[in-house]
Amino acid sequence: MTDRSSGPPRLEAEAFHVNAAGRRVPMDVNGHVALPFEGVGMHRPAGPKHGPPIRSCSGYPANGDKRVPDLKTALERCGLRDGMTISSHHHLRNGDRVALKALNAAAELGARDLMWFPSASFPCHEPVIDLMEQGVVHHIEGSMNGPLGAYCSRGRMSGLGVLRSHGGRWQAIQDGEVPVDIAVIAAPSADAFGNANGSHGPSACGSLGFALADSIYADHVIVVTDNLVEFPCVPWQIQGNNVDFVVEVDSIGDPSKIVSGTTQITRSPDRLLIAEYVARFLRDAGIVRDGFSFQAGAGGIALAFVGFIREIMREQGVKARFVRGGSTSYLVELLEEGLTDYILDGQTFDLAAVESIATNPHHLPTSPFTSYNWHGKGNFASMVDAVVLGATEVDVAFNANVVTHSDGMLLHGIGGWQNCLAAGCTILALPAFRDRIPVVVDEVTTLTGPGELIDVVVTERGIAVNPRRTDLLDVLQQNDTDLPIRPIEEIKAEIEQLVGGPPRKPELIDQPVAVVKWVDGTVLDTVWQVPDAPGLGG
Amino acid sequence: MTDRSSGPPRLEAEAFHVNAAGRRVPMDVNGHVALPFEGVGMHRPAGPKHGPPIRSCSGYPANGDKRVPDLKTALERCGLRDGMTISSHHHLRNGDRVALKALNAAAELGARDLMWFPSASFPCHEPVIDLMEQGVVHHIEGSMNGPLGAYCSRGRMSGLGVLRSHGGRWQAIQDGEVPVDIAVIAAPSADAFGNANGSHGPSACGSLGFALADSIYADHVIVVTDNLVEFPCVPWQIQGNNVDFVVEVDSIGDPSKIVSGTTQITRSPDRLLIAEYVARFLRDAGIVRDGFSFQAGAGGIALAFVGFIREIMREQGVKARFVRGGSTSYLVELLEEGLTDYILDGQTFDLAAVESIATNPHHLPTSPFTSYNWHGKGNFASMVDAVVLGATEVDVAFNANVVTHSDGMLLHGIGGWQNCLAAGCTILALPAFRDRIPVVVDEVTTLTGPGELIDVVVTERGIAVNPRRTDLLDVLQQNDTDLPIRPIEEIKAEIEQLVGGPPRKPELIDQPVAVVKWVDGTVLDTVWQVPDAPGLGG
Repeated sequence: MTDRSSGPPRLEAEAFHVNAAGRRVPMDVNGHVALPFEGVGMHRPAGPKHGPPIRSCSGYPANGDKRVPDLKTALERCGLRDGMTISSHHHLRNGDRVALKALNAAAELGARDLMWFPSASFPCHEPVIDLMEQGVVHHIEGSMNGPLGAYCSRGRMSGLGVLRSHGGRWQAIQDGEVPVDIAVIAAPSADAFGNANGSHGPSACGSLGFALADSIYADHVIVVTDNLVEFPCVPWQIQGNNVDFVVEVDSIGDPSKIVSGTTQITRSPDRLLIAEYVARFLRDAGIVRDGFSFQAGAGGIALAFVGFIREIMREQGVKARFVRGGSTSYLVELLEEGLTDYILDGQTFDLAAVESIATNPHHLPTSPFTSYNWHGKGNFASMVDAVVLGATEVDVAFNANVVTHSDGMLLHGIGGWQNCLAAGCTILALPAFRDRIPVVVDEVTTLTGPGELIDVVVTERGIAVNPRRTDLLDVLQQNDTDLPIRPIEEIKAEIEQLVGGPPRKPELIDQPVAVVKWVDGTVLDTVWQVPDAPGLGG
Repeated sequence: MTDRSSGPPRLEAEAFHVNAAGRRVPMDVNGHVALPFEGVGMHRPAGPKHGPPIRSCSGYPANGDKRVPDLKTALERCGLRDGMTISSHHHLRNGDRVALKALNAAAELGARDLMWFPSASFPCHEPVIDLMEQGVVHHIEGSMNGPLGAYCSRGRMSGLGVLRSHGGRWQAIQDGEVPVDIAVIAAPSADAFGNANGSHGPSACGSLGFALADSIYADHVIVVTDNLVEFPCVPWQIQGNNVDFVVEVDSIGDPSKIVSGTTQITRSPDRLLIAEYVARFLRDAGIVRDGFSFQAGAGGIALAFVGFIREIMREQGVKARFVRGGSTSYLVELLEEGLTDYILDGQTFDLAAVESIATNPHHLPTSPFTSYNWHGKGNFASMVDAVVLGATEVDVAFNANVVTHSDGMLLHGIGGWQNCLAAGCTILALPAFRDRIPVVVDEVTTLTGPGELIDVVVTERGIAVNPRRTDLLDVLQQNDTDLPIRPIEEIKAEIEQLVGGPPRKPELIDQPVAVVKWVDGTVLDTVWQVPDAPGLGG
């Protein structure tokens, strides 16, 4: 244990509660009561959705022209004050030039103690560390990938990080858990009224779904664009009727970092084997059938999986009803080959996918509301037959971690990962170890997904099926599968033998630096402070 | 004056207030405080938008299948109780088979004192009179076209009718002025999750925009369809994430009454002349220019106007940026000829328009939110350069009436009429008299639109420009117009000479039967009871 000179307020032992997953979680998160996780599907929300202020057309220009000269003017006219919450979206990924510009403009206006509420942050946002050091930004609630995660891990942030899934972020905004004062929406195309989309323009990024909740529920909404088009901007995924101001800038982002020219299939033989196992598993478990659906991301294994499942679909002559992205050229090829009726797309990762979503009416943008929001009347995620996900760790109870490494460092966001666990068959596709650190462990460092929702763990050393899924095991047996189905403990033991034992438990400081929210807004786990010791990553 | 045996509670003289338009309006409407009209753009709303109850996916089937056997089951599972508000939309117009079915199902379940909240009612809904007589339906808030309007006019309804524009209905729902308990949405296409659209299926009606607010803000939402499609139903103008139950029925409507095969241009020489005057007026007033926009409805004069304006656009080689419907084959032809970039469509009136909205990506459905809601951050209506509307009466102060006839009978809804008055140039295109009753009067029977928003009155006997619009008068003069521009008083005098004097003022009973809301939710005027005397229409 070490002391800290800065960081979130110290919490004493009685400030914690052990939740239904057996995890010790704080009962106060940044000054608000935090409900502990009650079990999957157990928390029943009450009360009304958040109602943003009623506005009147009499406060907006009748000709629809809401342009102001710059972000500073827009923030001033939104009534920027100390302590406000400023939100942004991450569809521009590591190429984003808008979120930082907005926070810097707020700094120039003298604002202090802001809460930054991005849908995710990337290495390009590292300068927000300076704004936190200066007291302009108090803390971040949102995925912190890379340097900001490390900064948070070391206990430097003045408040607790709050990690939410894409669906959890919608839920938090919709439920009024996070009232957004000013949403700053980078828009690859927009008109002067504020109608905006991500599918057209020099900085095209595909869907703008992550900004949709902000546009609907924030008190004030600023659209920032480098591609002003004549009214109406079509499609209007963001509706000008929710927008206060429009700001034109030279560039909202670096196109080469917004989308990759092409996404790359893994070349690792182990990872190719994992991808092949996943595809064969779906076949042997009877999931690949006419009208089925699946979701796979843009990682190397997921892309390779799409190639293998395509072969199987061709062989069996079956067609998917829909596939869900993150979309890439590989999904676009499926659509164009007629192997799926639709791509229902959450984010768009490469140029082929951006082109497709802009032009193919069967390639549809979705939002965290349609796809992931747990506090809706259902969502799309539970209608997906199979989802292929990654993880940093999985334990013998099938619990999984996606936010921290085994050394305790917070380096990743949750993304849609938690939301996807609602699929009919949730598969973690994982290399057995990374940098000689086993991925299958006794107990995950940070619980991000409860084991009861994770059905299958596929590694190059074998496939473990959650014993709860006797139905899957039965079908595999009926179909005489030749896949290496093994108990997870056996896979774990083999890995440990290979790398010389289980990973060393990290020595963490008994003070929280962040919490992991579950999809219903309750606190699933705590991220603990990592000491400033040499040899720890970040 | 006569007494009534039934009808809304009698209001005493002190229960009224004279509003900013000089109209005497009740201060209590169906048990709620009603704000009197304060002047155009003067009322500033306060408080938050309505927040419907937060729901959880755990209350909905994970496989997305929300079907229940019938409307009765759906209503029961929505917790139908006495006094609830049941809403419906009118995109199926006089062919609708769903709203009445829903109210009858509620009657069979023993419900009493319901408020029916349709976006409009039609003659096909006449049997709701029986439900009101039986006490199942207490009163109607919504446009009452035809027999229901007459029933209301005669003071038979147990509550006051509340007439709102399409935008005003959105405003009332959004602002929580009318909390909708159960929305029943007839859907020409839907999936079992509740995603729905109006553009496909045997009962296709085009856009479903009038049902959108209900789907977002109602406590419970039931989708009723005769065309269940596999998930996902695309496009999902109504989102399943807002829907509780889906009911399959044999038929939601009579296609021949939902859309007309073709819409008909007027053949009356007088009305053709009016249409031509309107088009020439737009030309001579400098409004027809590249990138301009206009809105015209589906009435005979409006359709003829589209033909004339098309000729002018061709002659001048100009193209509109957008035209707004109610859409018909005439607007579709403009789009297909390349004379406009977009149709922004509120409702779809004929088969050609239904086909177009289903297939042409430049023919876009809009909603009262995008187009008309006054309590948004602007709306599309004020960005339209010119709108061509009808009216039952217009007075010498350019005030207009669209809901009652000169005999005081309530026979029409407001539709989008009030909302359209925000356009750059608002033109009433009217025959000088109907059935020998002059249309230009001293003072309108029921004030539906304040004269300051009405710029031009075009009749076959001359064109009156509102003296406030000196800018229009200047341009007309500069352009040496040969149109018969005349003072409105002069036109009125000429009409009266022709028909033998001004219309007789109706003798109305000093008890309100309905109120006309302005776009901001305040009360613009009162509709007074019509005595049960022979010789009065309806």
